[in-house]
Amino acid sequence: MKSFEFLSKKREEKPRNCGITMVLDKGLGLETANSLMDISGEYVDYLKFGWGTSIVHEQNIIKAKVEMYKEHEITPYTGGTLFELAYKNDKLNEYFKEAHDLGFPAIEVSDGSVNIPREDKLDCIEMAVDEGFEVLSEVGKKNPDLDKELSLDDRIKYMDEELKAGSSLIIVEAREGGKNIGIFDKSGNAKEDEIDYILDNVDGNKILWEAPNKDQQVFFILKLGNAVNLGNISSDDITSLETLRRGLRGDTLGKI
Amino acid sequence: MKSFEFLSKKREEKPRNCGITMVLDKGLGLETANSLMDISGEYVDYLKFGWGTSIVHEQNIIKAKVEMYKEHEITPYTGGTLFELAYKNDKLNEYFKEAHDLGFPAIEVSDGSVNIPREDKLDCIEMAVDEGFEVLSEVGKKNPDLDKELSLDDRIKYMDEELKAGSSLIIVEAREGGKNIGIFDKSGNAKEDEIDYILDNVDGNKILWEAPNKDQQVFFILKLGNAVNLGNISSDDITSLETLRRGLRGDTLGKI
Amino acid sequence: MKSFEFLSKKREEKPRNCGITMVLDKGLGLETANSLMDISGEYVDYLKFGWGTSIVHEQNIIKAKVEMYKEHEITPYTGGTLFELAYKNDKLNEYFKEAHDLGFPAIEVSDGSVNIPREDKLDCIEMAVDEGFEVLSEVGKKNPDLDKELSLDDRIKYMDEELKAGSSLIIVEAREGGKNIGIFDKSGNAKEDEIDYILDNVDGNKILWEAPNKDQQVFFILKLGNAVNLGNISSDDITSLETLRRGLRGDTLGKI
Repeated sequence: MKSFEFLSKKREEKPRNCGITMVLDKGLGLETANSLMDISGEYVDYLKFGWGTSIVHEQNIIKAKVEMYKEHEITPYTGGTLFELAYKNDKLNEYFKEAHDLGFPAIEVSDGSVNIPREDKLDCIEMAVDEGFEVLSEVGKKNPDLDKELSLDDRIKYMDEELKAGSSLIIVEAREGGKNIGIFDKSGNAKEDEIDYILDNVDGNKILWEAPNKDQQVFFILKLGNAVNLGNISSDDITSLETLRRGLRGDTLGKI
Repeated sequence: MKSFEFLSKKREEKPRNCGITMVLDKGLGLETANSLMDISGEYVDYLKFGWGTSIVHEQNIIKAKVEMYKEHEITPYTGGTLFELAYKNDKLNEYFKEAHDLGFPAIEVSDGSVNIPREDKLDCIEMAVDEGFEVLSEVGKKNPDLDKELSLDDRIKYMDEELKAGSSLIIVEAREGGKNIGIFDKSGNAKEDEIDYILDNVDGNKILWEAPNKDQQVFFILKLGNAVNLGNISSDDITSLETLRRGLRGDTLGKI
Repeated sequence: MKSFEFLSKKREEKPRNCGITMVLDKGLGLETANSLMDISGEYVDYLKFGWGTSIVHEQNIIKAKVEMYKEHEITPYTGGTLFELAYKNDKLNEYFKEAHDLGFPAIEVSDGSVNIPREDKLDCIEMAVDEGFEVLSEVGKKNPDLDKELSLDDRIKYMDEELKAGSSLIIVEAREGGKNIGIFDKSGNAKEDEIDYILDNVDGNKILWEAPNKDQQVFFILKLGNAVNLGNISSDDITSLETLRRGLRGDTLGKI
């Protein structure tokens, strides 16, 4: 039961089809993560075990964290860099098997660091779906120079193809920093015309915008409404983002 | 019992009339907050449940956190944005009742985001005091353009009026970021002449300066001494601030 | 047991002679620190109780934290500012005694904030070694203007002298911020030629580079390999650094 409910805007309940929040776990302790989910887990839909962090932690702790997140009705998934490493090393079957063993219901398929031919990426998405995973796929390169080579029309074509191949959500890359990458310029400001163009061509509910900084979160909420899907949220900012979505913080109060 | 006490400057003990530290809780888990208070709670005087965060968390967790903070002799209080929403929605009575039910001994009265006529704000302070709350009131606007419209003489007049209406402390707005707001310029540097002018006209022990960044904390301690009241301190920085106050960190060592 | 081990580069096991990670504890709660060490403590070699933080916490909590870190095969040590205060107040014997009582196996000897004649600093290192401590000593001043007065040849001479006096590692100062100090310029970029010159003259395995920011960590790993010693790592970034060292994050994937 909540207090002050007479002051709050309504929000979609879980499982949500929009207004999704994806949080980045950079290596939280099990008890600390559990304490955080007890207070704010209802506002988290997806939980990414960032990049290759799942390699360096003990299996029993990863399993316990995966289980704990699932108890909070959160979908935990492995970061895209891990998939890319498996692809690069020709170890996809082993990768899928171990991800299953750890209990992950979803994985990310990306090509941000490793060069993967389009056909292969789409095959991988289909293969992962066949293996029983929900697939989130990411469009964009981690290297800003390579990322700039991707035209907007390419991005849109890729998004469309990946959704058709079975991805449930398309992640628009912004990294943990959110600057000079994808739809953000060097100062971290969003390129509004590019976002409009993407949304003219792709179903917005299928897009998860990485928006690690508060200003970016405010921008998206004010531009696209509080049911926008946002990702790479710091675990420290889960509650803040939920209040931004509901107009309970100065930046969005009275504006949504 | 402490170690190395022969190296430490003395500080006021709780309950303190000056040298107050106010910490911002953005949504800490109960156990994590408790662990933090066990080690550093003695250096925290006020604990703000930031803006509207109290709306989105379960009552039983908020009650448990409020109780826990009080056991550490800390005064927990609800953020000003929550008050402003209640005012705007004409729900002040319900607001006071639920804040009481959750166990909050204090509330913040502000007009940073919502336009509240002066008379109404002063009435609200008196009303909250009558309801049994300690009141901290804030002077300043969250929107930098609106904030700049407030002259220094207005600020001083407002502080004076609000203290007379019953506020125990006046908070000088700097938000979580501490830049381009109130007495901080765009780079987060303090405007020293404005601070001097305020202190020529208002009792410094009644002012709580929001100073979220370390450089700002150092500035205030070096300028006004270690018994300055500082607020919007990140929960990660409680111990750091206490060492700055005592000359136990490079920035203030040998200087206070 | 780890998952996805077929994707991982090997790393030195503890106790490590190179590839050392030193983490800064700014005042973590005992339970929170323990939860973090359970998941990532195997990647931490040294744990610094930052500057004078050990003065303001209760002895029983410090003892429990020291013990907990040691159980994770981590060497906890007291920050250099504490040593400098003891020197300045002519309380070195009391300082050594209390550090022993708290269970610290190591201390830092620095002169970043207090002016200590060279001979005295070297004597202090010898004295601490005689008292049974492992000594990490730091070269550099916390004040950027004073720090700039130190020539590179002076730094190298000092490093050499301090190693001979008994220091196990020489820390190159960068503070918590990592900008405009030591080998970092105002933007936090490393001065590569100075690093080369130092490494031409001092054994790299004996140097611990403070590198608080991710870009700095990436720089050192790409320049000097993943067995570089890095310090002042935020407790939030332990796992991230380990993945950077192993090429499991985009910044170093395929590059080491």
